[in-house]
Amino acid sequence: MIPDRILMGPGPSNVAPDVLAALSQPLLGHLDPEFLPLLDELNDRLRQVFRTASPVTFPVSGTGSAGLECVVVNLVEPGDRVVVGVNGVFGGRLAEVARRAGAEVHAVEADWGRIVDPEAFLAACREHRPALAVLVHAETSTGVWQPVAEVAAALRDSETLFAIDCVTSLGGVEVDIDGWGVDAAYSGTQKCLSVPPGLAPVTFGPRATERIRSRRTPCRSWYLDVTGILEYVSAEGGRKYHHTAPISMLYALHAGLGVVLEEGLDARIARHERVGRMLQEGLEALGLPLLAQEGHRLPQLTTVGLPDGVDEAAWRRRLLDEHGIEVGGGLGALAGRAWRIGLMGHTATEANVRKLLAVLGEWLDG
Amino acid sequence: MIPDRILMGPGPSNVAPDVLAALSQPLLGHLDPEFLPLLDELNDRLRQVFRTASPVTFPVSGTGSAGLECVVVNLVEPGDRVVVGVNGVFGGRLAEVARRAGAEVHAVEADWGRIVDPEAFLAACREHRPALAVLVHAETSTGVWQPVAEVAAALRDSETLFAIDCVTSLGGVEVDIDGWGVDAAYSGTQKCLSVPPGLAPVTFGPRATERIRSRRTPCRSWYLDVTGILEYVSAEGGRKYHHTAPISMLYALHAGLGVVLEEGLDARIARHERVGRMLQEGLEALGLPLLAQEGHRLPQLTTVGLPDGVDEAAWRRRLLDEHGIEVGGGLGALAGRAWRIGLMGHTATEANVRKLLAVLGEWLDG
Repeated sequence: MIPDRILMGPGPSNVAPDVLAALSQPLLGHLDPEFLPLLDELNDRLRQVFRTASPVTFPVSGTGSAGLECVVVNLVEPGDRVVVGVNGVFGGRLAEVARRAGAEVHAVEADWGRIVDPEAFLAACREHRPALAVLVHAETSTGVWQPVAEVAAALRDSETLFAIDCVTSLGGVEVDIDGWGVDAAYSGTQKCLSVPPGLAPVTFGPRATERIRSRRTPCRSWYLDVTGILEYVSAEGGRKYHHTAPISMLYALHAGLGVVLEEGLDARIARHERVGRMLQEGLEALGLPLLAQEGHRLPQLTTVGLPDGVDEAAWRRRLLDEHGIEVGGGLGALAGRAWRIGLMGHTATEANVRKLLAVLGEWLDG
Repeated sequence: MIPDRILMGPGPSNVAPDVLAALSQPLLGHLDPEFLPLLDELNDRLRQVFRTASPVTFPVSGTGSAGLECVVVNLVEPGDRVVVGVNGVFGGRLAEVARRAGAEVHAVEADWGRIVDPEAFLAACREHRPALAVLVHAETSTGVWQPVAEVAAALRDSETLFAIDCVTSLGGVEVDIDGWGVDAAYSGTQKCLSVPPGLAPVTFGPRATERIRSRRTPCRSWYLDVTGILEYVSAEGGRKYHHTAPISMLYALHAGLGVVLEEGLDARIARHERVGRMLQEGLEALGLPLLAQEGHRLPQLTTVGLPDGVDEAAWRRRLLDEHGIEVGGGLGALAGRAWRIGLMGHTATEANVRKLLAVLGEWLDG
C-alpha cells in the first residue's frame, strides 16, 4: 500500500531495515526492567554521537522543533536577553520561540544562503551580554554550514550559554559538543540519523545544567521541563513517572544509533562528504547554480536553482511519480525557484546521486 | 530480544498486530501525495472516535501530556482564571500546567479515589467565572470515572470553556464530545486505542477555536500552537510546513483507529465494561478491596488494595518475571499499598482476567 520512495528531500531520509524491524517489536512498559537498560544504552549512544560526556543527554518526546523549544524554554527566563543568528527558517523559529518564552531577542541577520558572520555574532554577544546565544549549525532551509567552533570558544568564559541547532548536522558532519565547548544542542531523528521523525535528541552540558538548577522561575513548559524529564530518564532520578515514554520510537532510535556507530562516526561523515560533493559537482556540470555560500555548503543538504521557466513544483511531482524520488521545494526566500536535495544517512549513496543526475540531465537536455 | 508481555498496567496496553505492521511500513515524506490522504483519513477516524464534527481534530506530535499542555496553553492567556478538578495525579498536573501558562488556578479538590463533586465544581465556576474549566474524565492514578456531561451542559451558555482529559477514557468508555457540548479534549494513544505511546489526539470545538483565533497574546508554546499546526494538518491551511510530522507513529494511529472502528465503538465500550467488571468482581471475591468510589469505577482501570504485609513491588516483579504480566503500582497517595490494573484496548480480554485472577488466587492462598 505504501510505495517505496527515495527520500532525497530535507528529511525524513530513508530508514535502514534494522530500524523498521525495531519499530515493530512488541511493546514493553516504560518501567519494564527489560526496557530501562535499552533506554540507558540509547542515551550512551547519543553521547557518543554528540561527542559529549554529559549525563543530561536524552531524546525529547517530540520532533526536532520540540527539541528546539526544549533547549530555549529550559535555558531562558522572562526578561533574559537572547542573541540568535537568523539566516533562514530555523534561526527565525529560534527567535520566535525565545520571544514566546519571554526573552528580549536580538537577531544577528544574514542573507539566506550566507553564513552568519561569527565576528558580528560575537560583537552582538559582547554588546547585549545575553543569557543565551544560539546558532543554527546546519540551516535546513538553505544548505548553509555555519562555523560554530570559534564562537563556542569565545563564549566559553563569558556568562553567555551557547547552544546550537544540530537537527540536520548530527551524524552527517562533525559535531563535537564537548570538544568545542557547546553548552546545549538539539537534533532530530529523521535527518542524518535515518530514524523516522518523532524524537529530538538533546544535550545540556554542565553550565547549562547549572543554569536549569538555579532558575528563578519554573520552566514555562511542563512537558519539556528537563528537571522533570530527568527524574525518569536518568537512573539517578529514581525512574519516577513524568510522561509515558514513546517506546516504539525509542526502539527505533536505539537501533538507528546502533547502525550509525557500527558504520563509525568518522566513516559516516566521510560518506556524506563524498556523496554530497559528487551531487554538487554533478549539478554544476549540468549548469545549475548552487545557492549556498561557497566554502559553507553542507554535503547532506544542497540548495540548487532551477532554470528560468521551469515549473519546479511540476518537476518535483514528476520526479516522484515517474522515479519515486522525493526532493524538497525551497522555503521562504527560495520558494518557487529552488530545490533542496538531501543526502542524509541511509539515503546518501552514490547510486542515488547517479539516478537523480541522470534524470535531471535528460530533462534539461529535452 | 524483546519479551512478550501482557500489559495490564495503566498504559501502554498491548498493540494489535495490524498496528505493529503499520509501524514498520516504509517512510513517506510528510508532504507526499500518498501520505496526505492517510493523514486526512486518520483525522476523520479521530472525529468518529471523539464523536465530534469539529475540523480542529488531530494528533499532537507528543505523548498524552503534550496533549494536556496543548489544550491548556492554547486556551489560556496570562492572568486568565482556570478552575480544575483535582482528585489525582492528572488533575494536579493540569493545575501545574495552567499555572505555568500564567493562569490564576482554582482547584476543586476531592480525596483520591472519589469523584470531584459536580455541584462543587460548578459552584467554583460560578464564583470565579474562569476562562477555562477542566475535569479529568478518567483519572489514571485512581481509576475514578468522573461524570462530566452535566457539567458540560451547565457551562455551555457561560463564558467558560469546558475541557476534559480523555487520555484513559477514549475508546474504552463513552466519550461524546459534541453530544455533551465539550469545548476541547485530549487523549493518548497507548491506552484504550492500543497504539504505542507517542501521539496525543486533541479536539477543539467551535467556541474553543474562536477563543484561539481571538487571543490577545501568542500561545506560549510555538510547538503546540494550534494555529501553526493547522496550517499543515488541515488541507485548508495550505499544507504549510510547521514541524515534520511523525510519519511512522501516524501510520500506527491510523491503523489502530481502523481496528477500533472495525470492532465498532459501542461494541468496544461494551467489551471494556464486561471484562472490567469481571476483573473487579473477581478481585472482590478474592477479598481484595477496590479503591475507587463505588458507582464511579472505570472498567478499564482498576485500583485495588493489597493485604497488609504484602510487598507490592516484589509481587509486581514476580508477576512480570514468572508470568509476563505487567501491572502498575500506586501513585501518590496510593504508592506502596495498591495496584493499578489496566484492561485497555487489545489487553481487555476474559483470558487475561482469568490468568491474573488465577495467579493472585494462588498467591493469596499460599
